[in-house]
Formats: sequence, C-alpha cells, structure tokens
Amino acid sequence: MPELRHDPVVGRWVIIATERTRRPNDFAGIHSHPDEPKVNPFTEGNEELTPPEIHAIREPGTKPNGPGWRVRVIPNKFPALRVEGTLDKEGDGIYDRMSGIGAHEVIIETPRHDLQLEEQPLDRVASVVETCRSRMADLLKDIRFRYVLVFKNFGWEAGATISHPHSQIIATPVTPNVVKEKLAGAQAYYEQKDRSIFADILKQELKDGHRIVHQNAGFVCFCPYASRFPFELCIMPRRQLADFHRIEADEVIQLADVLKVALLKLHRGLNQPQYNYLIHTAPARYPKKGYWTTVDQDFRWHIEITPRLTQIAGFEVGTGFFVNPVPPEDAAQFLKGVEV
Amino acid sequence: MPELRHDPVVGRWVIIATERTRRPNDFAGIHSHPDEPKVNPFTEGNEELTPPEIHAIREPGTKPNGPGWRVRVIPNKFPALRVEGTLDKEGDGIYDRMSGIGAHEVIIETPRHDLQLEEQPLDRVASVVETCRSRMADLLKDIRFRYVLVFKNFGWEAGATISHPHSQIIATPVTPNVVKEKLAGAQAYYEQKDRSIFADILKQELKDGHRIVHQNAGFVCFCPYASRFPFELCIMPRRQLADFHRIEADEVIQLADVLKVALLKLHRGLNQPQYNYLIHTAPARYPKKGYWTTVDQDFRWHIEITPRLTQIAGFEVGTGFFVNPVPPEDAAQFLKGVEV
Repeated sequence: MPELRHDPVVGRWVIIATERTRRPNDFAGIHSHPDEPKVNPFTEGNEELTPPEIHAIREPGTKPNGPGWRVRVIPNKFPALRVEGTLDKEGDGIYDRMSGIGAHEVIIETPRHDLQLEEQPLDRVASVVETCRSRMADLLKDIRFRYVLVFKNFGWEAGATISHPHSQIIATPVTPNVVKEKLAGAQAYYEQKDRSIFADILKQELKDGHRIVHQNAGFVCFCPYASRFPFELCIMPRRQLADFHRIEADEVIQLADVLKVALLKLHRGLNQPQYNYLIHTAPARYPKKGYWTTVDQDFRWHIEITPRLTQIAGFEVGTGFFVNPVPPEDAAQFLKGVEV
Repeated sequence: MPELRHDPVVGRWVIIATERTRRPNDFAGIHSHPDEPKVNPFTEGNEELTPPEIHAIREPGTKPNGPGWRVRVIPNKFPALRVEGTLDKEGDGIYDRMSGIGAHEVIIETPRHDLQLEEQPLDRVASVVETCRSRMADLLKDIRFRYVLVFKNFGWEAGATISHPHSQIIATPVTPNVVKEKLAGAQAYYEQKDRSIFADILKQELKDGHRIVHQNAGFVCFCPYASRFPFELCIMPRRQLADFHRIEADEVIQLADVLKVALLKLHRGLNQPQYNYLIHTAPARYPKKGYWTTVDQDFRWHIEITPRLTQIAGFEVGTGFFVNPVPPEDAAQFLKGVEV
C-alpha cells in the first residue's frame, strides 16, 4: 500500500509509492531511457492489454474494451495511489502519514499513436477536454479526495514512459503545496482589493499585449510575466470560475481551440519539444471545512504549459528559485509568429 | 542587465537572465547535451581562461591566477545576476520587478579533473567546505544581498555544463520561496512548542535509527521521513546554529567527513548518479526588518542532497507534489551497507 508522508517543516505531502518500488539495487547504473513496451497497449485493437476502461467516448454501437473509441480512460497500471481502502491517518513520532488512497487514471487521447494531441482535428481535441472535465467532476464526488490533478507529460525528460498520446489524472486526499500557495495568494489579494488577482492579471496582459500568443472568445494564452521556463504558457479563461469541471459546452470547444493552437505553436516553432501541462483548479470544498470562503470569487482555474528546453537543476526544485534565459516578451513574439 | 520578476499570485521571484539569452530560434531543435568546452578552463595551468580569481586556497609562494591552488573561486562567466550596479525596484502595472543585482561565483573544487569531490582526501574536502563558508560570510557583508545560496549540480540532467568538479554560489536580493516556507514552518513550530523543529527531527531520527546513513561527532546524515527523491539525504548539524557561515573549524572537518562519506556512498552504491546538493541557511538579518526574531533558536542550517535517478516531471515542479518509489528506510539501509 502506498502512503503519504508529511514534511514537518514545509508541510509538503509526498507519496511513497511502494507499489512501484524498484529495489535500491535496481537504481545502480540505470541512468538511461528505459525501453518502450514492445507492443503499444494504448493503440486501437490492443484494449485487452490494459485494465478495463473507466470511461470512453465511443462510436455508436461499439462495446467497452473493444475498438471504436475516440478517447479512453483506464486505471494506471502502476498507480501512485490506490482507490481501494479507507483513508487512515496516523502520527509516527513527530511525523504524520496517511494511507495512499486516491485515484490514478490514464486518458488515452486518441486511438492513433502517430498523431499528437495538437495534430488532431478540433472536435477530437474537444473530446479530450470534455473527458478531463467529466472525469474530474466524477472523482470529486468521492469525499475521500481533496484535490484532482489533470496533467500531461510529453517526452521522457518530462516524465512520460509511453509515447502514445496520453495524459493523466490523480485524485489525492490532500491539496498540493503549490495549489495552497496559489489559493492563499489569491485570497490575500481579494481580501485587500475585493478583486480577483486573475482578473487583474488578464486585464494587464490584454492592455500590455506583448506577452499574448493567442486568444479567442473564451480564453487568452500568454507567456506569464514571471515565467520560470523559456516559452512557458498560461491559458486563462475570461470568465471567473474557480472549478475547471464547471466549464460549459461552448468553453470546451474554445479551450480545445486555444490548447491546440498553443501546443501546435510549440510543436512547429520549437521542433516538438518535451513539455508538461497542468490544470490548476480549486480543491474540493466541503461546507464543514470553512476554508477559502471566497474561493469562487478570488481563484480562477487555469492551465500552465511548461516546455522542457532547459534542465531543471535540483537547486531550482530545492529553492523554488528559477533562472529563465528567455524573456517572456521575446518568447511570445516568437510564438505569435509561428504559423499553425 | 538581468532582472528579477515577481509572480503576483505565489510571491515567487524569477531571474530573467537576459545576459545568458539565447534567441528563441536557438531553442528550435536543441534537445541534446551541448558539447563540453574543448579545453577545460577549470584545470590547473589554464587559469588564464577564466575571469580573475576572487579567492583561492594556495600553496605558499604561489601567485593569484597561476598554478599551485587547492580550491579556486572565480566569477561565473555567464552570471545569472550581476554584481555591478544599484538595486532598483519598480512596479510594472500590477507586477513588480527589480534589477538583477547579485553575485554568481564558481568554486573550482580541485585542480584535477579526474577526481570527484568525494574521492579527494579529507583535508581537501575540508578546504572546499571552508571556502564555501568564507565566501558566504564575505557575500553577506554586502547589504544589497538578502540570501546566499551554495549548491552543486553534478551531471548534465542536474544542470551542470562542465564536468570538472565545481560548485556554485549565488547571492540574491530576495529570499527564495522554499527558504521562506522553511523559515515560516520553523517559526510556527517554535512559537507553539518553544523548541526547534530541527532538534526534534534529529532526536526522532536518532531514536528511530532506521533512516540514518552515517554520523560523527558533529553531524548526522539521514534519509528524510518525507523524502521527495529516491536516496535523498539530509545532513543535519547536532549544534543549534541558523547560519552555515558561523560553523567552527572543528565543524568544517566534521562536515567534510560526513559530506565525503555521503557522496561516496551514492557514488559507489548507485554507480555515480547525477545529483544536486544545496546548503539551506538562514537569510541575512538586518535589525530594521524585524523579521524572524527567533530565527537563531528556531532555524538550523542543513544540507539537502538529491540524486537524480528519476525524472522530475513538470507536474511535480508545478504542484510541489512528489512521487518517490523508494521508501527512505530502504534507501538508508542500502546506503548504510555501501562500504566507503
């Protein structure tokens, strides 16, 4: 059983994923890219190689766990957290831990291995966005979960082990530290100014203009003022909404457009770099908690896209202090000029 | 001129290092290891290839910027921050920035390129530790600087671009976010319990015993309870002291021993993995600030060593939520058994 452990100084939770354990000896000498599985378990026709599907968008008349799907969601075969069991919390001397209860799912974004997400037609990208939305909405019904993370690792250095286009969902019984920092920052700003900081950021970006890469009726894609990474992108909705899973049908299409354009610009302009994206959304809220009472007004869901063009030195992870060699204004100007 | 920019939501400062700028086009297609310089600028005899030395430990009778040194400190040729100029701070719409004033130095740990730090004799490792200490003490005299970071990147994925043994010092006009979190956590604990959390952690580790890798009269090296990475190590002094640069001469030797043993165990046990280490110390303190009034009692300097055996997915950087496949108890047992 995996477990969550609490860092007593900074309050960060870490997953000790014993289900994935390699023995210490297995690390000796392994510094290279492991092989892809010989048979692609994510491609159409190989459905029996994966655990049974949790959810799928399918052609009419097709059966679960067979061909005929557009998007397919399965449990992660090597989950960081386990969905079965009760959430036990206990002290361990001065330390704290809890059982590794959660969910870990894989969203297979397309039956085809040879087309990346951004190369798919708009309606197929929209199917992926809608799948993320509906899986998040479903997982948030489980009162054991405090947060649902949707993210994508593209490329080995970005954390992917299978190249077939996919993203992941993890539901956790705790709220990640960076999310807490964002919530606290947004709340403090709201208390002082009675405005959402995200609204003010969007207003500033639209006024300045020189960090904007793409926009449509629902969303604005820009390089953040304090970008940590070269060509980092933020996708921000125009509408104040704390929860990603509450987006409307028209926003699904608009988000698919801006996501497709953003990823295609990175792909074409920077020769298909490795990257991660991450949907920042509000945590689950239960009335009894009394936390973040203004979260619906002060926090706004958004997406961070971070290309992996420079090494992330351990010191940057260890300090939260990043060195970015490309000013976001230059990055935006470059990406704006990439034809898609 | 580089600049520091402030993330308005989480309060994180980022260095936009324009002095290092590659143009956006330079990133297209570059995903591989750049070549090492053809001539090693850090080896003995090549002193004229580096900027003039700031500090060195030399054999009697030898001259600056010539052979005969044990440890040599030079300015970084591609500094993230610039030491010349005034610290200008200004608003930029809703955003904040300041000029990129700071220091960025390289500590060349040995004249020989073929022996890593941990393979050097103890007295030479002690010379490196003493150099880190004295450079930190010197940089903290500059009232423009709020924090001094000493860190080492070993290996390309860990951020190193030259393989000759070296570490780095960056002095910054702001305190990094993770340091602030550590300070805040330590202060909150002290306010509640009137004890240093670091003293309590050390007591718990010595009592439990099964996460300890090595110890001597001055220091304990252990795998932290909530390790983010496989084989992560913490070196904690037994003596309550907030500032690394205030260690005594006997502690320099003791630290050299524990650092040498820790790195040698990683080297031999895990086939010379890439790694980073980082000295966490208290920020500069000026009476007028009134911050962290109990910092001398509540905070304790320490070293984090993080091997790079797994990929750091962007989602982990983006959320502060880490998945570690090796329980620290297993890691400690393994490393304890590695002969050095």
